[in-house]
Amino acid sequence: MGLLDDIRSPADVKALPPEALDELCREIREYLVASLSKHGGHLASNLGAVELTVALHRVYDTSRDRLVFDVGHQCYTHKLLTGRKDFSELRELGGLSGFPKPYESVHDAFIAGHASNSVSVALGMARARTAKGEDYDVVALIGDGALNGGMAFEGLSDAGHSGEPLVVVLNDNGMSINEGVGGLADMLGRMRTRVEYIKFKKWYRGSFLPRIPGVSPALGAMKSWLKERIIPENIFDNLGFEYIGPIDGHNIRKVENAIRWAKEYRAPVLVHVITKKGKGYAPAEQAPEAFHGVGAFDVKSGVPKYTGEDFSSVFGRALTEIAGEDESVVAITAAMKEGTGLIGFQETYPDRFFDVGIAEEHACAMAAGMAAQGLKPVFAVYSTFLQRSYDMLIHDVALMGLHVVLAVDRAGIVGRDGQTHQGVFDVAYLSSVPGMKIYAPANFAELKAMLRRAVLEDTGPVAVRYPRGGEGLFLGDTSGKAAETVYFHGDAVTMVSYGTEINEVMEAARMLRSGGVEPEVIKLNVLSPLDPEPVLASVRRTGALLAAEEVCAAGCVGERLLAAVEQEGVPLRAARLVNLGDGIVEHGAPRALLQKMGLDNGSLCKAVLEMLHGKDKA
Amino acid sequence: MGLLDDIRSPADVKALPPEALDELCREIREYLVASLSKHGGHLASNLGAVELTVALHRVYDTSRDRLVFDVGHQCYTHKLLTGRKDFSELRELGGLSGFPKPYESVHDAFIAGHASNSVSVALGMARARTAKGEDYDVVALIGDGALNGGMAFEGLSDAGHSGEPLVVVLNDNGMSINEGVGGLADMLGRMRTRVEYIKFKKWYRGSFLPRIPGVSPALGAMKSWLKERIIPENIFDNLGFEYIGPIDGHNIRKVENAIRWAKEYRAPVLVHVITKKGKGYAPAEQAPEAFHGVGAFDVKSGVPKYTGEDFSSVFGRALTEIAGEDESVVAITAAMKEGTGLIGFQETYPDRFFDVGIAEEHACAMAAGMAAQGLKPVFAVYSTFLQRSYDMLIHDVALMGLHVVLAVDRAGIVGRDGQTHQGVFDVAYLSSVPGMKIYAPANFAELKAMLRRAVLEDTGPVAVRYPRGGEGLFLGDTSGKAAETVYFHGDAVTMVSYGTEINEVMEAARMLRSGGVEPEVIKLNVLSPLDPEPVLASVRRTGALLAAEEVCAAGCVGERLLAAVEQEGVPLRAARLVNLGDGIVEHGAPRALLQKMGLDNGSLCKAVLEMLHGKDKA
Repeated sequence: MGLLDDIRSPADVKALPPEALDELCREIREYLVASLSKHGGHLASNLGAVELTVALHRVYDTSRDRLVFDVGHQCYTHKLLTGRKDFSELRELGGLSGFPKPYESVHDAFIAGHASNSVSVALGMARARTAKGEDYDVVALIGDGALNGGMAFEGLSDAGHSGEPLVVVLNDNGMSINEGVGGLADMLGRMRTRVEYIKFKKWYRGSFLPRIPGVSPALGAMKSWLKERIIPENIFDNLGFEYIGPIDGHNIRKVENAIRWAKEYRAPVLVHVITKKGKGYAPAEQAPEAFHGVGAFDVKSGVPKYTGEDFSSVFGRALTEIAGEDESVVAITAAMKEGTGLIGFQETYPDRFFDVGIAEEHACAMAAGMAAQGLKPVFAVYSTFLQRSYDMLIHDVALMGLHVVLAVDRAGIVGRDGQTHQGVFDVAYLSSVPGMKIYAPANFAELKAMLRRAVLEDTGPVAVRYPRGGEGLFLGDTSGKAAETVYFHGDAVTMVSYGTEINEVMEAARMLRSGGVEPEVIKLNVLSPLDPEPVLASVRRTGALLAAEEVCAAGCVGERLLAAVEQEGVPLRAARLVNLGDGIVEHGAPRALLQKMGLDNGSLCKAVLEMLHGKDKA
Repeated sequence: MGLLDDIRSPADVKALPPEALDELCREIREYLVASLSKHGGHLASNLGAVELTVALHRVYDTSRDRLVFDVGHQCYTHKLLTGRKDFSELRELGGLSGFPKPYESVHDAFIAGHASNSVSVALGMARARTAKGEDYDVVALIGDGALNGGMAFEGLSDAGHSGEPLVVVLNDNGMSINEGVGGLADMLGRMRTRVEYIKFKKWYRGSFLPRIPGVSPALGAMKSWLKERIIPENIFDNLGFEYIGPIDGHNIRKVENAIRWAKEYRAPVLVHVITKKGKGYAPAEQAPEAFHGVGAFDVKSGVPKYTGEDFSSVFGRALTEIAGEDESVVAITAAMKEGTGLIGFQETYPDRFFDVGIAEEHACAMAAGMAAQGLKPVFAVYSTFLQRSYDMLIHDVALMGLHVVLAVDRAGIVGRDGQTHQGVFDVAYLSSVPGMKIYAPANFAELKAMLRRAVLEDTGPVAVRYPRGGEGLFLGDTSGKAAETVYFHGDAVTMVSYGTEINEVMEAARMLRSGGVEPEVIKLNVLSPLDPEPVLASVRRTGALLAAEEVCAAGCVGERLLAAVEQEGVPLRAARLVNLGDGIVEHGAPRALLQKMGLDNGSLCKAVLEMLHGKDKA
């Protein structure tokens, strides 16, 4: 790796002669493929953005200019070029984050992980710069998938109107995460191929780029006059942006020129760059969606080293089966059909499958409209992304008591994707939605049974929350009918949990029993409405309660149980709530995070012993 | 009122000869002005939509076709035409709702109140219709203000792509609630005045409308071909909609023809209608923003019968004062500068005031960007609308601990605007946001002190929540420094509350004292992080706890206090949490709602006596 080895900071990138840049990009790709093949990560999106990132670093100084990534799973090249070249612990506890993270480097201007916020954040920064009379540049880098999210539109509308010098780089791979969906994607597709745009691009660059810096107002006016007559307006012009594009995103000279032009223009400019997801690695070019987020894989063949059943795939098959029995069942995803396991559903029932793109708000309100007219919509969505639908859950679904089913994937500790992706708030926010029923299956069989009940038997809003990954040793036997199940019987302490965390609790209980302490374990199947009676009955005998949950403390089930214990006047001599505190959980292997947060079996066993023998009650 | 008297259902509207419609509209306006001058309500938006609503009822059968209102404060004419003509109890408990409400009439297809959902809901309904092989029509009615909300864009993008027969009527008064803001509003402004559009409109109607029904595919293709060459594309074409407009929204024949054409076109069509907010009532035409939501007023002069100080106006003045001391303070509103009291701030500091339009997501992420670069942004927003920023509060603000101040207006029971507007979830959802501090002032002096502290002294995310309307008799004396204040001292029961509900609790305490029961009253000033110690200290003496809150039960402060009491092992013989249960609270006068929910002083007094003397502990 000749060139990459010598890149210690972006200054080294700026110092390279233009003719060396293609070789640098080749080395970066080689490093990314080799590194991710061992440890996994986001591959295809990063391979597509290599030239673009190099170009950005040749134009901007990210130590003071603010580069705002959208979603951020295309930031690996940026990390490599800003002194973070050790990917051996990428996404592990204590290692580099897989997303931009200001605590990690001054070059990371803002956090990223959830889509469509970059234009808003960048506009806020640009306005702060202007208000404080400072002079750095601000640039947002957004993919075509994230552009579909409504907040991006809100940001563009305000930014275009503001006149603030600000550059939005649209990294358009025509894929989002899957192929593009929606009217916006159709439009981008037309723009990519349209003769007028290509003509315009040539004329535009030919006439004006050489004159930079110093675009004269007269030239600007002439350009606008001509443009209006030659080029149909697009959505970006409409919103007040100066539009440049489309630009070949793998021609580094062209991208660099366009971005440099945009930077000097001192107004809101959108640079439309066309890239290929997975670029430079044949397996990823051929199946970019399969290489979006990957585990370890074989470099030569691209074949993943591990494939196994997980909650998502079980959900997808179960829903397909249920849909076979009731033709009013439809499935909705917000650009996550692979992640949520819905590929098979789409193949079986293409007319009953709706991928709305990154648009969780719309997905939820649309589901409400469907339910109002007699369909049974199931919205499969990651816990962390469903946060964006909170208002619609209350307003559009709950106030009318509509039967919308939420398949809440990635609930609890998610692991390596880190703090922006952990599914740790859903129990709190879903519990506050009027009439929301929440199931918490702990294994595949329970997921199937509870999903069936949620779709076919329940009414009103209902959520089934399940974790990332596979089931544990605990297989249980619940049919999804009981609100809770009691395992082990004992008088020493009542241990309460739900979801796959029950595996840790059961193992802790075994450890305690082998040490002569007899705990009672209660697994909750329904978290809301919460029936505290079985827990109260147990606590009446044990006088001690420990609740272990992979959720934030505020609004956790344990708190609700304690309040119920108190209201019912049940005597309690010791209580302990083990959870994720304020809900901010770093990236790392799930097991490592469980241990760090005291939710693994060893920590739980210790917590019980302390609680029973120590004097502390908190 | 000759004609309106005889309208018993939409069938009567359809039966009227076209030449009678202007007179009907005149009568409707007269009725609206007379009725609202007595009781208040949303006036200007309803006056603007009279012809439009009559036209919709001449084209559609709303008993089976689905008319989805966006926001819904333009639904009064719709109510009048669908058998709901008694406005004497409008917005009062038990009277007509001021918003569409399916429980009230089959003609109300869906709930409304929060903006920008109508296209999504309508698309869901259209897809349900198609999936079930039914044949009704679906139409969404959205204002230009709501169109700015990102969810509307998400809905348009998906709907345009879907090909589903669906009509979106854009009621464009160029005002939103204030004058239009943002790039979208600029674009609509250009469209309204653009010669090409007007030419196109003439040609469009001249060539095609007479041929309806039965637009031949060949004609459609020719039209598209011509249109692409004559008319610049707009955002709606771009997203896949057939665009018609702009149409004069007060020419009932033209509006009716356009909507009829759109209905027959069997594809996604957007009908752009230009209306005048406040139309037909001079005071409202001249100052439409003042007549958006009104109380009683004098018909002749338009002068409101009551004006008084309220929390919003106090907030606005206090923030303007604080901004004078610290030039990094900026104010943000999402289309609510009047409602949130920010007019004076805008006048004093126009460069530090940002109205982003209806875009709560963007407002919050932009504020985060501002805070990251050293400004102190204050986002003034209604509690119920802040629900839409929940994800951004966690992701963009809290994970980085950014100092964004939320001025949460309309917290608690809001009253006549009803269930979609009550601010009853914020304590639950804000408490789950990592590191969020929540102040709850109970009077104007406290609001000023706590706001000052939140903006100038605190760090990280912080919210100041305060109610709609004025302060009560309780004036207190808190400087905003103590997390709680103890009023009255007694050994019978600990009564806990916060915000203006403290007035009810104090009065109840007085009543109890006069009956020989000595309660202790604790007013919480900071709800999160919650310091339970003062409450615990009191409960150690009283052994009984009552918490009165205008919020939903899940995630309420009382629950948290009970859990703390339990964890600390404080003996408690009686506890009662008085709150709003599942959080669904109807429309009505705030006083009437307090009584209904048991939160008025009489009910609280009774609750304490039952708790102390009865045997129930729940």
